[in-house]
Amino acid sequence: MSEQKIGYLGPKGTFTKMAVDALFDGGNYISYESIPACLDAVEAGEISTAVVPIENAIEGSVHLTIDYLVHQVKQSIIAELTVPIKQHLLVHPDEQGEKIHKIYSHSHAIAQCHQYLHKRYPEAELEYTASTGKAAEIVADVGRGYAAIGNHLAAEENGLKILDTDIHDYDNNHTRFAVVQKQPQTLKVKDHPVTKHKTTVMVTLPKDYVGALHQVLAAFAWRKMNLSKIESRPMKTGLGNYFFLIDVDQPYDQVLFPGVQAELEALGCQLKVLGTYPSYQIDIPTPVQKV
Amino acid sequence: MSEQKIGYLGPKGTFTKMAVDALFDGGNYISYESIPACLDAVEAGEISTAVVPIENAIEGSVHLTIDYLVHQVKQSIIAELTVPIKQHLLVHPDEQGEKIHKIYSHSHAIAQCHQYLHKRYPEAELEYTASTGKAAEIVADVGRGYAAIGNHLAAEENGLKILDTDIHDYDNNHTRFAVVQKQPQTLKVKDHPVTKHKTTVMVTLPKDYVGALHQVLAAFAWRKMNLSKIESRPMKTGLGNYFFLIDVDQPYDQVLFPGVQAELEALGCQLKVLGTYPSYQIDIPTPVQKV
Repeated sequence: MSEQKIGYLGPKGTFTKMAVDALFDGGNYISYESIPACLDAVEAGEISTAVVPIENAIEGSVHLTIDYLVHQVKQSIIAELTVPIKQHLLVHPDEQGEKIHKIYSHSHAIAQCHQYLHKRYPEAELEYTASTGKAAEIVADVGRGYAAIGNHLAAEENGLKILDTDIHDYDNNHTRFAVVQKQPQTLKVKDHPVTKHKTTVMVTLPKDYVGALHQVLAAFAWRKMNLSKIESRPMKTGLGNYFFLIDVDQPYDQVLFPGVQAELEALGCQLKVLGTYPSYQIDIPTPVQKV
Repeated sequence: MSEQKIGYLGPKGTFTKMAVDALFDGGNYISYESIPACLDAVEAGEISTAVVPIENAIEGSVHLTIDYLVHQVKQSIIAELTVPIKQHLLVHPDEQGEKIHKIYSHSHAIAQCHQYLHKRYPEAELEYTASTGKAAEIVADVGRGYAAIGNHLAAEENGLKILDTDIHDYDNNHTRFAVVQKQPQTLKVKDHPVTKHKTTVMVTLPKDYVGALHQVLAAFAWRKMNLSKIESRPMKTGLGNYFFLIDVDQPYDQVLFPGVQAELEALGCQLKVLGTYPSYQIDIPTPVQKV
């Protein structure tokens, strides 16, 4: 079997790359600068597999991934990966305890450490960067007196040391990543427990009518199918036209799902399966503090 | 009446600032570097009103705004503003038709113009910035041969000229902004038509049980209350615990809403009103091309 080519949302040291390292057991990893570029590469056959953030991401947006999968490319979600977000304060290796006067990071990462920064570095200037990986790159360049917020991989990749660990305000902050392919192939992954098997469907409504969503959910509810997530998203055809993205907590089967589909089509709705896949939950231990 | 102090997600030339200019009829405008900083300023009484993106934003994240309103501050949404997203290609005023070799913008803006860039500037290097406003600032500094993607306000604020208008791949791409206050006060706004009046509620479920959401929606459906948006969001108490954010297409009243609340509480759910407010829809005309 030839080596699997896996694309991910870069640059080096992003949370997406950490997810890739945690999930896969070898392969050829290729970094892409944006979610669309990564999914286009799958479409063009440059890579077999893409890993992109799908919920609660730092570098990316749920909406960007979902919309691109729905509108632009014909690809399936073949696995999902949940990773805890742990933010650390990264400094130059020569840092000697000087006053930190400027802190770089992605706006979401800075927001996640808002209370910590307010308490510990109230006078530091904050500068927003396009990603946490980019922030670490900058600190490696500018030297002492500066810090970046990012993960331990960003520290490793840029030769930074970790001044303070787990500086995020809330625990239980996770990011979900989707693993997508055009033609589902065997995936060589490390030995992780599968927490559950899920199916993501997209339901479009014929028009905006009172109680439509309620009727859609009834089709799942009386079959005792549990839904772990539901989200309405605008169609790109104008305001007020929505589709629904629904995560069902079970694998696709040939009885329940076709039953739901027939019931929804009778109501004038359409149902499209975006993927049926195992869900992996991975723990990333907090690194031992080196300062 | 003293002048109203309005905070917004900056820097200069963002889509949020464009929304502020379109909505308000005078006031003291203050730019904040992040959504939490802007909402904290309301909490501290530095400003009376904040304007932050709440859906489909370029610079910000829905989730960041929603989570902060739900978990961190006690503020109400008192108005909503829908603005079309129109992206233009901005260049230095001295640009003479040289080859554009590098294009700067926020990753979402670049993603929104993905097909245009692929067709017209396949060889240009793309560099991601923290906001579209920042991208325009950089191009004003670096000079000819570079371009930024942003709105017409970013061009004005940074003295750039618009090389190409409406370069986004899809029309009907809108951003919703929330206007929030701690103590609802009178708002001096320009004369805009109110398209509808909405109420946003947050519903928490006692635990993850089959069909829970279906029962919640039934309480709205049999009262013929139309829902224009629904989204499940994780509570910060661990994976699998969700709350629902629901937009109801009518103003809060003393009959239907208390009825829904009583019905949901009987099911073990809790309902919290995040705001009842007018929804303004604003058109931003495409600027006349100046090159």
